[in-house]
Amino acid sequence: MPLIATPQRMHFDAPLPLQSGASLRDYDLSFETYGTLNANRSNAVLICHALNASHHVAGTYAGQTNSEGWWDNMIGPGKPVDTDRFFVIGVNNLGSCFGSTGPMHVNPDSSSGQVYGADFPVVTVEDWVNSQALLLDVLGIQTLAAVMGGSLGGMQALSWTLQYPARVAHAVVVASAPNLTAENIAFNEVARRAIVTDPDFHGGHFYQHRVVPKRGLRIARMIGHITYLSDDVMNEKFGRQIKAPTLPTSLGSLPPEGSLAPWGGPAALAAAVLPYRYSTQDVEFQIESYLRYQGDKFAEYFDANTYLLITRALDYFDPAQAFDGNLTRALARSACKFLLVSFTTDWRFSPKRSREMVKALLDNRRDVSYAEIDAPHGHDAFLLDDARYMSVVRSYFDSIWKAIPV
Amino acid sequence: MPLIATPQRMHFDAPLPLQSGASLRDYDLSFETYGTLNANRSNAVLICHALNASHHVAGTYAGQTNSEGWWDNMIGPGKPVDTDRFFVIGVNNLGSCFGSTGPMHVNPDSSSGQVYGADFPVVTVEDWVNSQALLLDVLGIQTLAAVMGGSLGGMQALSWTLQYPARVAHAVVVASAPNLTAENIAFNEVARRAIVTDPDFHGGHFYQHRVVPKRGLRIARMIGHITYLSDDVMNEKFGRQIKAPTLPTSLGSLPPEGSLAPWGGPAALAAAVLPYRYSTQDVEFQIESYLRYQGDKFAEYFDANTYLLITRALDYFDPAQAFDGNLTRALARSACKFLLVSFTTDWRFSPKRSREMVKALLDNRRDVSYAEIDAPHGHDAFLLDDARYMSVVRSYFDSIWKAIPV
Repeated sequence: MPLIATPQRMHFDAPLPLQSGASLRDYDLSFETYGTLNANRSNAVLICHALNASHHVAGTYAGQTNSEGWWDNMIGPGKPVDTDRFFVIGVNNLGSCFGSTGPMHVNPDSSSGQVYGADFPVVTVEDWVNSQALLLDVLGIQTLAAVMGGSLGGMQALSWTLQYPARVAHAVVVASAPNLTAENIAFNEVARRAIVTDPDFHGGHFYQHRVVPKRGLRIARMIGHITYLSDDVMNEKFGRQIKAPTLPTSLGSLPPEGSLAPWGGPAALAAAVLPYRYSTQDVEFQIESYLRYQGDKFAEYFDANTYLLITRALDYFDPAQAFDGNLTRALARSACKFLLVSFTTDWRFSPKRSREMVKALLDNRRDVSYAEIDAPHGHDAFLLDDARYMSVVRSYFDSIWKAIPV
Repeated sequence: MPLIATPQRMHFDAPLPLQSGASLRDYDLSFETYGTLNANRSNAVLICHALNASHHVAGTYAGQTNSEGWWDNMIGPGKPVDTDRFFVIGVNNLGSCFGSTGPMHVNPDSSSGQVYGADFPVVTVEDWVNSQALLLDVLGIQTLAAVMGGSLGGMQALSWTLQYPARVAHAVVVASAPNLTAENIAFNEVARRAIVTDPDFHGGHFYQHRVVPKRGLRIARMIGHITYLSDDVMNEKFGRQIKAPTLPTSLGSLPPEGSLAPWGGPAALAAAVLPYRYSTQDVEFQIESYLRYQGDKFAEYFDANTYLLITRALDYFDPAQAFDGNLTRALARSACKFLLVSFTTDWRFSPKRSREMVKALLDNRRDVSYAEIDAPHGHDAFLLDDARYMSVVRSYFDSIWKAIPV
């Protein structure tokens, strides 16, 4: 039976103190749940989302075609994270533009009822985890059977094990890293500069001007896409293929982090070598067309301030910072079991970064499973179907299920 | 004795037919020469430049401090390319903003005397090589002892061996590639989109509006810098170091392609971990400060239309295209000896790309020397001092020198 998702919203009256020293006076969290919480509340799984995803993790909305959740291949009835067994929760992070309180919502401190815009406080991975824990309190869930996430979502899963070690039995950290490298930060910074220096950004208060800094958002998304994909998959899908004079009739819909899946690639077009147009501004190569399309699409729906906030949360995350950079000491607080997964061609969060976490956990004698999946798709692989990847996650959740106190 | 450089300029009256089908009605080439042409004109070495360099390859300008040529560590009296032995020529490419005819010059087809701007025709590596050959004709040089270049300059050196096989005895191709990958094109395209969508670009005719699309140029340069450096060297020089509240008093001057050399790095600043500022728009990390500085500096002197033209020349270069992608067949026309050099951490033009050229040349039974230098600096390594690199080039030019007909 197909999974029908129903978005919910929870209001929180008490202020949320943030890592920066600021606080949110009150706030809403958007979330979805799938499956049934068992009698002793021991089968809950929290899914944390990455850059541009949301609480809509699995299933579809009633009556809406093409409304699959962003991790619908992973989570659902009979899927690796089986909602016939587990009570799965997806929460939208604070600062997002998809439901939870964010820059597009009214700032309660504004006398004129303006939206937050650039005044939305900086939120960190740790702040998100705190807000997720408060939601679980209201849902009556003390302990998670598992917390799971990919990329930035994996950072939240890792942080859960450090902030609330007694509340997590298992953490599944996919395609993630214990912090960003200088190169990671550099890409984020270029994307942010493109947004902030767009004349339509207006210092982050563009809403009042009824404009959107689309130029900057487009550039940010194009840069992002390059880093999500591997050099190999780009060469395979696009190579140096010249763009045909007319657009393909449909490019299909795209999953959250921008997987290549629905794009047919040049194979769908004429394979013949077309002549160069000799233009500096027009599209000449397929890869340019693909990136422009992705950029245009993203600029239509994503909020510029949210982009700044979320990339900053990525930059700031660094649990080892308080321990002189010693990750082993930083992860000593964790008490749960771990599954880590990385992908060989992921150069954004490379296997090396996952191995750093594995080593630090093993140094602490934690129970760690680690799978390095030989997949060609780069960072995007964590959202795609790969038989070995799916099988590893399925096995791990099977074992969680068998050990759950009923 | 220090080398004093003197820029020269040559006017060409005859139209230059271009690969695109367009032509340049007339044009000037800026160039410099170092050393002395021997009696039988057999010791000439042509140096081809990359993205943002010029004809000013070596030496300094009289009375101007900090005016070293962009490859002054490589070329000069007693240096690996020894100007006491060779007559070295640096030519500025057409479409550049440093002297040769380009978008900032008056368009002879404009009735109102406007500059070319975006109407400057698309120029290719092959066009540049043709114009360089015409300059050599005027200088009375039939055969080059060597043609040499790094990165885009290496593409020109390779193209020389295919367009004028009888006029080249040796080609030195450093940190280059036989064409761009999809990822390379993607980075170029994002940079171009940043420039073209800057409201100050005005379709490439910003000169009349007395503005410069500096926002776009800054983004373009920041992206470029990320790709010039290796992940390792970025982590070593900047890592996750927080930017100190005040700027260092001097950042020094920077060599053309933006080497890290003159920047002291975080070691020059307090080593202590500084607190986060928690800002989405202010500089927080050293790497951000470095990139912004590089972007600002570049936007002050580089022409936006030149940036588009030069990145397009990179995109278009693909000698194997006319041979169904078969590089071996494409390089069969070459007749000279080769030295190829690559750098292990160069992910922009990786050693793999150099090895493709080596293989194709060996398939054709050409005399090829190849050095893969284990250097940490990424693509930028080709501009930096590295003892093994310098030694390889010195040895190769020693052997050229010994074989020159006197």
